[in-house]
Amino acid sequence: MSSTDAPRPQLKIRRVNLDTGRENLVVISRRSTALRPEVFSGFSRVELRCNAKVMLATLVLTNDGLVDPDEIGLADPAFRRFAEPAGSLVTITPAPPPDSLDAVRAKIQGRALNAAEITAIVDDIAHYRYSDMEIAAFLVGSASYMTSDELLALARAMAQAGTQLAWDAPVVADKHCIGGIPGNRTSMVVVPIVAAHGMTIPKTSSRAITSPAGTADTMEVLARVDLTVDEMKEVVRTCHGCLVWGGHVNLSPADDILISVERPLSLDTREQMVASIMSKKIAAGATHLLIDIPVGPAAKVQSAVDAMRLRKLFEFVGDQFGIAVEVITTDGRQPIGNGIGPVLEAQDVMAVLANDAAAPVDLREKSLRLAAHLLEYDPDLRGGAGYRRAQELLDSGAALKQMQKIIEAQGPSGHRAELGNLTADIRAANDGVVQTIDCLRLNRLARTAGAPIDKGAGIRIFKKIGDRVDKGEPIYRIHAFEASEFDLARAAAELDSGYVVASRSPHDGGAL
Amino acid sequence: MSSTDAPRPQLKIRRVNLDTGRENLVVISRRSTALRPEVFSGFSRVELRCNAKVMLATLVLTNDGLVDPDEIGLADPAFRRFAEPAGSLVTITPAPPPDSLDAVRAKIQGRALNAAEITAIVDDIAHYRYSDMEIAAFLVGSASYMTSDELLALARAMAQAGTQLAWDAPVVADKHCIGGIPGNRTSMVVVPIVAAHGMTIPKTSSRAITSPAGTADTMEVLARVDLTVDEMKEVVRTCHGCLVWGGHVNLSPADDILISVERPLSLDTREQMVASIMSKKIAAGATHLLIDIPVGPAAKVQSAVDAMRLRKLFEFVGDQFGIAVEVITTDGRQPIGNGIGPVLEAQDVMAVLANDAAAPVDLREKSLRLAAHLLEYDPDLRGGAGYRRAQELLDSGAALKQMQKIIEAQGPSGHRAELGNLTADIRAANDGVVQTIDCLRLNRLARTAGAPIDKGAGIRIFKKIGDRVDKGEPIYRIHAFEASEFDLARAAAELDSGYVVASRSPHDGGAL
Repeated sequence: MSSTDAPRPQLKIRRVNLDTGRENLVVISRRSTALRPEVFSGFSRVELRCNAKVMLATLVLTNDGLVDPDEIGLADPAFRRFAEPAGSLVTITPAPPPDSLDAVRAKIQGRALNAAEITAIVDDIAHYRYSDMEIAAFLVGSASYMTSDELLALARAMAQAGTQLAWDAPVVADKHCIGGIPGNRTSMVVVPIVAAHGMTIPKTSSRAITSPAGTADTMEVLARVDLTVDEMKEVVRTCHGCLVWGGHVNLSPADDILISVERPLSLDTREQMVASIMSKKIAAGATHLLIDIPVGPAAKVQSAVDAMRLRKLFEFVGDQFGIAVEVITTDGRQPIGNGIGPVLEAQDVMAVLANDAAAPVDLREKSLRLAAHLLEYDPDLRGGAGYRRAQELLDSGAALKQMQKIIEAQGPSGHRAELGNLTADIRAANDGVVQTIDCLRLNRLARTAGAPIDKGAGIRIFKKIGDRVDKGEPIYRIHAFEASEFDLARAAAELDSGYVVASRSPHDGGAL
Repeated sequence: MSSTDAPRPQLKIRRVNLDTGRENLVVISRRSTALRPEVFSGFSRVELRCNAKVMLATLVLTNDGLVDPDEIGLADPAFRRFAEPAGSLVTITPAPPPDSLDAVRAKIQGRALNAAEITAIVDDIAHYRYSDMEIAAFLVGSASYMTSDELLALARAMAQAGTQLAWDAPVVADKHCIGGIPGNRTSMVVVPIVAAHGMTIPKTSSRAITSPAGTADTMEVLARVDLTVDEMKEVVRTCHGCLVWGGHVNLSPADDILISVERPLSLDTREQMVASIMSKKIAAGATHLLIDIPVGPAAKVQSAVDAMRLRKLFEFVGDQFGIAVEVITTDGRQPIGNGIGPVLEAQDVMAVLANDAAAPVDLREKSLRLAAHLLEYDPDLRGGAGYRRAQELLDSGAALKQMQKIIEAQGPSGHRAELGNLTADIRAANDGVVQTIDCLRLNRLARTAGAPIDKGAGIRIFKKIGDRVDKGEPIYRIHAFEASEFDLARAAAELDSGYVVASRSPHDGGAL
C-alpha cells in the first residue's frame, strides 16, 4: 500500500435519534479514535466516505456517552440519506466545499452562469452537499438578476434532479395557484371535474410550510396522499386524475431544499418562483398548464402590472419546454370558501362537489372557471364550451362520483376528520359592512390554533367582504384541540381580528 | 390573568455536552410537556426566554434520553451564551426572524443601508441572533456593492459591538498584514523593537482559521496569549507592548462571526476586508496604523493596481476615525522566514531577535522595514531615521531583552515547544534554480502535518526563489507527531511539492 492510500482509522456508524430537518448532522466523541477532534471544530463541514458513497455533513463534538470513541453518530436525516447500516465503517475528513461553489462565487461577483454550472449547483443541492449558508449564498447571489438562459437552465436542472413522470395521453393537464389565499382549495374540485371528463390530470400538491394547509394536507383528510410513483400511476390509469403529495414522489427535490432556505429568509424573487413551479410541472409531465395568480393587497402579487410580468415569465419557460401555459389572475382580496384548515376546507370541497345548498359559492364559481379553462384543452370544447361542460359535470354529480373514485383508489389516510372541540366565536366590534379581510392575519390565526398539524383546527368564516354585520355578530369561529393554542389564537384574534368593518360601502376591487 | 398572558408551559434548562461552534443549538424531547414538537421542525429557529433574557437558537428534536420531556437541552455554546443556571425555567416559541433582517432584504434588493440599519444588523449578529444562512444573506447581499457610508457604518458598528480600548499615550502604534504568506511572523520582531524604543504598541492578533498558524498561535509557543483586558493593560503599562490574542479580549466579536461564514464560503470582498480589519484597530485604540499588503501570484492581492485600490479604502476609513494609516506593499511571492507552523516560526523569530548567524535574513529585513515605518511616528525619528533606530535596537539586543520582558509579563503558556519527531525531507526532482513557490500549497501541507493544533508540526524550508538545487537535494522538511497526518502530508508533498525548479533563471518579480 502506497502512502497516498494511508488509511485513516475508520468509525462505526451509529444512528442517533436527533431530528435535524434538512441538515445532515453527525456527532463524534472528543475522545474519538479516528482523529484528533481539535482538528475539526463544532459546526465545521465534514465528508463521510463508506465504500464509494460520499456524504457531506455538519459536525458536532461531544464528551458524552451519545457516541463511543470509535463511533460516528448520524442524526436521523443523515442516517436515512446515507443509507448504510449501523456498524458500517466510514472515514471522516474535513469537507472541501462542493466544486460548484466556485460558480456561486462567480454569480455573486456578477457573472451569468451557463447551464453546466447551474446543473452542477442543483445536483449538489439535491444531494445535500450544500450547507444552509451555501444555499443562502446561491439564492441571494441570484436574487439581483437572473438571465433568461439561467432561468431555463435552473428549471431544467431542478426538474431533472428528481423523479420525471411521463404519461401516455395527448393532453396532460395541470393547474397551479401561486398561493397565499386562505381556503382556496380549488384543485380538489377542479381535478374531479376534469378527470370526470376523461382528461388526464395527475395533480401533485405540496404540504403547508408556513400556511395553515396545503392541498396535500387537506386531501389527506379524505385519502392517503403519500403514494409511490407506481401507486400514483395506477390511480391516474383508473381515474384519469389524482391528488397526491408531490414531496413523496420526489418531484424536483432541489426545489424543496431551496424553499426551506427561501422561507426563513423571506426571499421571494419572481425568477426563483417561476423556476420552482415550472420545475415541478416539467417533472410531472404536464403538457397544458393553468396558472392562477390571485391579486390582492395581502396576496403575493399586488398589482395587475406585476401579474403581467410574472405571466410573461411563465409563458416564456413553458414555450421552451413545450408546455402550453395559460395564466389567469383571480380575486385575491379575501379567503376562498368558508374554511381555513384541512378539515374545514375538506368540508367546503365536498359540499361544492355534492351541490349542497350551503356550499360556498365563491369556491364553486372559481373552480368552475378554472376547470373551464382546462377542459378547453380538449379540441371538442375549444372556444367557450368549457364552462358549460364543467357545470354539467359538477351539477350532475359526475365530479362527486369521480372524487369518490379517486379517494377510494388512493385509499384511506387514517386521519380523523373531526373538528377541534374548543371553539370561540370572534364577533364584530361595530355595525357596518365588511371592508377588508387580512389574509395573512387569518392564515396566522389558523396556524396558531393548530392547523395543519391538528387537521381539525382552524377557522370557519361567516362573513365576507361586502357582508353587512351587526355589532356582536360572529364573523368567524376558531376551532382548536389544545387549550394553550386555543387561548393564544383567541387572544390574538380578539386583539386583531383581521377584519375591517365600517359603515361605508366597501371599496370595490372590481372583477379581475 | 388575561388570555394574552396565557402562560406556555416552561422547560427546565439542562446543559447538553455538544460543541456546536458558533451556532446556538437546543434539543427538546418529542414528548415535551411544553409544546407539541410537531409544531416545530428539525432545524427551525426558536426563541428562548428566561425572565428578561432572550436567545435565538436552532432546534433539534429527539426521542432519546438526552433530555426529559420537561427539559430543554442547551448545547455548550448556547448554555454559555444564555448564562442561566441548569434548572432555570424557560419558554420556547418559534422565533420570529430578527427585525434587522428587513434591512438585509432591502440590501439584497439593491438599496443602500443607513447607519442605524447597519448598526442593528451588527448588533444582532454580535448577539448570536442570526443563523448561518442569515449571516450569509447579509454578506452576499453586501458583496455586489457597498457605499463609502455603508463601509464606515459597518466598521464603526463592529468596533462598538465589543471591547473598546483606550490608551494614555500620544502615539498608539499598530500594524496589520492582510495575510496569506506562510511564515511572515514580523509582528513578533516588530513589537519588541518598537516597544524597546518606548512607543506604545498593544498588539492583538488572531489565531489561524484556515492557515497553519496565526501570530497568536505562534506567540503561544513562548507565552500565554489569552490575557484579560486588565492583564493586557498591565503588560502594556510595564512593557509598552504586548502580543496577545484579540479573540480573548473580545475586540469586534461580530467580525469573528462574519469571518466564520466568509471563510467556508470563500467570500472575500475588499470592503468586508477593510471593515473587518479597521473595526479591530478602532476598537484596539490605535492612533497610527501600518498595513502590510503582500503582493504575489498566490497572495490575496495579486497586482499593484489592486493593492492601490485597497490602500485608498484603508486610508479613507482611517481618515474618518482619526487614525493615521500608512499602507505598504511587500513581496508576497514566497514564504518569509524558514519555518511554517508555530514552533518553527517562533524559532525564526527568536533567532532574528538574538542576531543568530543562521537567522532568516528576509524575516529580519522585512521586520526592520516595518519597524522603521512605525518608529517614524516618533517626531524625533521622522524623515528617515526610523530604519537606523530599528537596526540599533535589534543589533544591540534591546529588542530581544524587550521580548523577554513581554514574555515574562504575559506568563508561561504551558505549551511544549518541541518539533514534531516524524520527519521527511522533500527533495528536488531535478537540477536547477527555484523558480516559484506556491504559498497556498505549503500552507495546506503544513496544516495537513498537524499545524496549528500540533504546535511543533509544520515545514522547515531550505530553499527559496533563486536558490540553486541539485536533483535529490532536500528543499524542505516536514515535521509531524501523528503517523496518519505525517503520511498524508508526505504523500501530498511528494505528489506536488509546491516548488518549480528549472534550469533558467527565475522570473524576477522585482523589488516592491
